[in-house]
Amino acid sequence: MLIALLPGDGIGPEVIAEAVRVLAAAGARDLVFETAEVGGAAYKASGHPLPQATLDVARRADAILFGAVGDPDCDRLERHLRPEQAILGLRKELGLFANLRPAKLFPELADASALRPEIARAIDLVIIRELTGDVYFGQPRGLRKTDKGLREGFDTMRYDESEIARIAKVGFETAMARSGRLCSVDKANVLETSQLWRDVVMEVSADYPEVELSHMYVDNAAMQLVRAPGQFDVIVTGNLFGDILSDQASMCVGSIGMLPSASLDSSAKGLYEPIHGSAPDIAGQGKANPLATILSAAMMLRYSLGQADVADRIEAAVSRALETGHRTADLGGNASTTAMCDAVIAALG
Amino acid sequence: MLIALLPGDGIGPEVIAEAVRVLAAAGARDLVFETAEVGGAAYKASGHPLPQATLDVARRADAILFGAVGDPDCDRLERHLRPEQAILGLRKELGLFANLRPAKLFPELADASALRPEIARAIDLVIIRELTGDVYFGQPRGLRKTDKGLREGFDTMRYDESEIARIAKVGFETAMARSGRLCSVDKANVLETSQLWRDVVMEVSADYPEVELSHMYVDNAAMQLVRAPGQFDVIVTGNLFGDILSDQASMCVGSIGMLPSASLDSSAKGLYEPIHGSAPDIAGQGKANPLATILSAAMMLRYSLGQADVADRIEAAVSRALETGHRTADLGGNASTTAMCDAVIAALG
Ligand SMILES: CC(C)[C@H](C(=O)O)[C@@H](O)C(=O)O
Ligand SMILES: CC(C)[C@H](C(=O)O)[C@@H](O)C(=O)O
Repeated sequence: MLIALLPGDGIGPEVIAEAVRVLAAAGARDLVFETAEVGGAAYKASGHPLPQATLDVARRADAILFGAVGDPDCDRLERHLRPEQAILGLRKELGLFANLRPAKLFPELADASALRPEIARAIDLVIIRELTGDVYFGQPRGLRKTDKGLREGFDTMRYDESEIARIAKVGFETAMARSGRLCSVDKANVLETSQLWRDVVMEVSADYPEVELSHMYVDNAAMQLVRAPGQFDVIVTGNLFGDILSDQASMCVGSIGMLPSASLDSSAKGLYEPIHGSAPDIAGQGKANPLATILSAAMMLRYSLGQADVADRIEAAVSRALETGHRTADLGGNASTTAMCDAVIAALG
Repeated sequence: MLIALLPGDGIGPEVIAEAVRVLAAAGARDLVFETAEVGGAAYKASGHPLPQATLDVARRADAILFGAVGDPDCDRLERHLRPEQAILGLRKELGLFANLRPAKLFPELADASALRPEIARAIDLVIIRELTGDVYFGQPRGLRKTDKGLREGFDTMRYDESEIARIAKVGFETAMARSGRLCSVDKANVLETSQLWRDVVMEVSADYPEVELSHMYVDNAAMQLVRAPGQFDVIVTGNLFGDILSDQASMCVGSIGMLPSASLDSSAKGLYEPIHGSAPDIAGQGKANPLATILSAAMMLRYSLGQADVADRIEAAVSRALETGHRTADLGGNASTTAMCDAVIAALG
């Protein structure tokens, strides 16, 4: 099976290299890797953050393991040339509409969470974020002049019913496989887009009578994720709200350096990436936490490659490496990126 | 001076009544009150959530003390008749573009925060939220059919440069009066509206060389508000992001029942309201925490009525009431709404 490796910018290459080491050590079967440039690195090499050659490899691949994009050198480029456009382009071009972001506290990390340990311990949720619609992609958007000659920036928030229904289904299916509870997050008291979102989620719920559906406004959800995150099991939400809530949830479990994600199309082809960014401030220093990427590789084995057994082994090894006290700087320790990965490999046994 | 009292729905009337008792006991000078209906209560009484008579009182008044709106009975009404439209309408009609939401931990409440006490203790920030623009009010918006005949919900996110500049100024002025640090929150890596936001904030910063300006993406800000909220002093952001981040910040200081807010126009006329909602589940049971509304009344004295001395007295009394152990249910205690208010009045000394 072909895996496209897209390391990208900043700490991306470091964490991808470690994840590949773990895949080999864990005995993942039949993997062929092809590496391609993406993000600021690709722009610097070839003038575009998502070169055609990279998109081609991504299309051909059975799964994509992605590092991170983002490079301060590129901040003043025109928008379509910025590193972030690469990940947005991949999601859109490959139809990766379903972003799964599990957040679960490793019990060993209760002390690393900013939340009180008794609150943090209760966290075991997954955020299902729609990834190819919303104000991220809606047209028209841009900069124009108002009647008064003022500069005006504008974007279009939008969802049609088919986009909402297909992500809602992923939410309901995920809830069926877990506790049977689904919370849909929107801002239906203000936004028309959210009103349709809520209506369609309710329509889809008719097909899932076993799932207990609730609705929450996004402001309240942001508050509840701090107050009592244990109340959530599966959250389904739009692209923008999912972006905010999933980053927030990451700190509840100790560090954004711990959270993997899967972005799936309708036939379980997927792109797997840590939810953290390129962290240019610590790039190249061997300080990055590789666990989010290693756990992303485990998700890849489970969701796209049919190797759940190897995925289980990797996740258990991450747990054991934490148990034996290994911690990177983001978790309050001083293990290097490589040392943390070595600990995981040692724990594979 | 004329104060419009708009109690609204749910726990609104209970908390407004207590705040009025405190204003009297604290010796606020020359206040005349006029009460008017708003929200679901107004809809039920007269068919509209923001009746013309209410808007007239609000316009005539020197300041408005607002309870909360929101009523599950009204959830299926057409959007323009829902309770929330009353507060949105007041903000827009009165030009209340600057929403100040201070979040500071009362040291006595370190145990009520979901955050570790050492993290919670560092919180002392104010979120300045733009309140009359963004995707809350942008046109066009609505429900339409796509080319394929699918229902599509859409909203317009937008800001023009004058709207951004005037709220940025409030941010810089507030930062000058505090620590001199301002963090502007946007999503400029994805949104055109945010790109203009960032550009204009930078332009305005030229007039405030003493203020140290930083920029943060909203997803990162949501994470940092949990991880290390002590890093923030003044945050300035748009309507939607401000809605989410300020609710989130509220839990960091113990309870949403503690947070006041001021919504100001360009001449310091203001609407003052707790940031919590109408909480229909506990309405009429004497369980609501009146402190957010009492603290909102104090903000009113300070910002719109020129009675900072009385405001100081009220805020000190709230602190002392907490010190002596009085707690409503949201703070883990069992004081009733009235008992909590009595404790504040007793502490006025
Ligand atoms: C880099 C950025 C465009 C991206 C997003 O907003 O989706 C990131 O924050 C994420 O969550 O994957
Ligand atoms: C009630 C609602 C419309 C309102 C908002 O979203 O602005 C509320 O959440 C607030 O923050 O004041």
